[in-house]
Amino acid sequence: VRAIEFDGDDLRLRTDYPDPVVPPGEALVRVHLAGICNTDLEILKGYMDFRGVPGHEFVGIVEHAEARDWVGKRVVGEINCSCWQCPTCRAGRPTHCPNRTTLGISGRDGAFAERLCLPLRNLHPVPDSVPDEEAVFVEPLAAALEILEQVHIRPTDRVAVIGDGKLGLLVAQVLSLTGAEVHLVGRHPEKMLLLEDRAVLHLEENLGELQVDCVVECSGQPGGLALARTVLRPRGTLVMKSTYHGDVSVNLSALVVDEVTLVGSRCGPFAPALRLLERGLVSVQPLVSAVYPLSRWMEAFAAAQQKGVLKVLLDMRA
Amino acid sequence: VRAIEFDGDDLRLRTDYPDPVVPPGEALVRVHLAGICNTDLEILKGYMDFRGVPGHEFVGIVEHAEARDWVGKRVVGEINCSCWQCPTCRAGRPTHCPNRTTLGISGRDGAFAERLCLPLRNLHPVPDSVPDEEAVFVEPLAAALEILEQVHIRPTDRVAVIGDGKLGLLVAQVLSLTGAEVHLVGRHPEKMLLLEDRAVLHLEENLGELQVDCVVECSGQPGGLALARTVLRPRGTLVMKSTYHGDVSVNLSALVVDEVTLVGSRCGPFAPALRLLERGLVSVQPLVSAVYPLSRWMEAFAAAQQKGVLKVLLDMRA
Repeated sequence: VRAIEFDGDDLRLRTDYPDPVVPPGEALVRVHLAGICNTDLEILKGYMDFRGVPGHEFVGIVEHAEARDWVGKRVVGEINCSCWQCPTCRAGRPTHCPNRTTLGISGRDGAFAERLCLPLRNLHPVPDSVPDEEAVFVEPLAAALEILEQVHIRPTDRVAVIGDGKLGLLVAQVLSLTGAEVHLVGRHPEKMLLLEDRAVLHLEENLGELQVDCVVECSGQPGGLALARTVLRPRGTLVMKSTYHGDVSVNLSALVVDEVTLVGSRCGPFAPALRLLERGLVSVQPLVSAVYPLSRWMEAFAAAQQKGVLKVLLDMRA
Repeated sequence: VRAIEFDGDDLRLRTDYPDPVVPPGEALVRVHLAGICNTDLEILKGYMDFRGVPGHEFVGIVEHAEARDWVGKRVVGEINCSCWQCPTCRAGRPTHCPNRTTLGISGRDGAFAERLCLPLRNLHPVPDSVPDEEAVFVEPLAAALEILEQVHIRPTDRVAVIGDGKLGLLVAQVLSLTGAEVHLVGRHPEKMLLLEDRAVLHLEENLGELQVDCVVECSGQPGGLALARTVLRPRGTLVMKSTYHGDVSVNLSALVVDEVTLVGSRCGPFAPALRLLERGLVSVQPLVSAVYPLSRWMEAFAAAQQKGVLKVLLDMRA
């Protein structure tokens, strides 16, 4: 198959990448669209020390599975492949399974290939009314919903999102569904304007006296944490969504004195993400900056790394 | 009055320190005993940039107050003096009032003096059955209880306390009242043995495979955070009680991937601390390493800084 491979130094398109061998309990999926995520860009810098085919946001069609009723279904797929046997899985935390592989991130080839494998239990059928260009957002939308799994946002709360990138714009939309007053803090007015009817918009350099109950750090920048602290009230909650390579220096005593709660937040639930898309409660198509055919993958990655660009999709059939 | 003053460089005993002028709504308290806390030792290193009389753990007798029924009462006192007017106070978070002073820590002389002032609303009468040597522990015991105000510890949880100092031994005792399985991680077997019937004891260098639902970092060491992380399960809660001068380098991505919750925890509620002491549910007298008369204050501070020493008290009447 054709696949984009990362060898630790560079990405390259291989046309002779071995076809995936489908293990028992897994499905072979022909990928339609795959999204380029910041995590993919961090992987190119060394994050997770990954080698192989990256990519974890996708929508496709099941081509092969032992359970024949899955064949031909259009699906999205949860990216953590858990053992379901260990104490962590049995305690109900399979996305933290110490034996897990993660699609295109750790120990398992991902979605920047014409075909991928995933366990059947990871797959979710996509309703007909949700087009591919929306379904490919289910994974990051689920990650945004994970915040609401972890933190109780009240309708009377004031919340802020730091970062006007792809994830920040999804998070701000999801938070606005709670009825809370949402503030979006970013650097790019043209991106932030997509949220103008759902959030109060603030340029980073002009924040003023904002004090919120909960702030979500989605900037992807190490400096985002310090910025988030400046808008958070004492005893507030700071949700960290960004992953990046390397350590950050933190004033822990200030967190103690202000009794701040920091919450790390990663992958989230797919079923509610599909429900929100089906009901049109989250708007994702305006977040698509460009769709490139796989054959023009180099342009796609170059575009994804430019400031001001939102989601870049790869059409793996073209 | 006699008072121990910190001038930014050194401590010294002054015999001519000005008598406190009692503002309206405040009481003049004659201090019986005062405890030396790690925060006091951090203040000597520059924490909070404090100048004046340190000391915030005390028990004493009200000598003067406009409300005459307070005079003669034996009291302990909450250390944060709030404005009760600002949005933070009105939102029910007076200990985070941006206009607050804090006894012996910020903007207000403290308990290492023969007399101190505190607002009447900060004072709590001490039941007759609780001797001075126990009442002087109400402030740090309240700080331990703050953990249970912030985090829901379940009877079926497994929890760990990092640090076998004064605060760690109080925290482990309070946590053990929940019915949870408590693990105490320290460096000094002789201190840890005080908790042998309430906690599983572990030497730091010999931790093994411990994985807990909640870990409380009370070591007072910047390295305590990394140690706490090693025993915490994914999606667990890490409570930070230590305050120290300076920043610490943290791998934030690891907190995101493991979806850890970090909770800063500071001052706590006095009323339940007094109830626990009155009912004999927490044992504090074994934590007293020595009681020095104020005249021997230098020996007291030298002792408090030695490894293996627990609480050092100053008798401000002697």
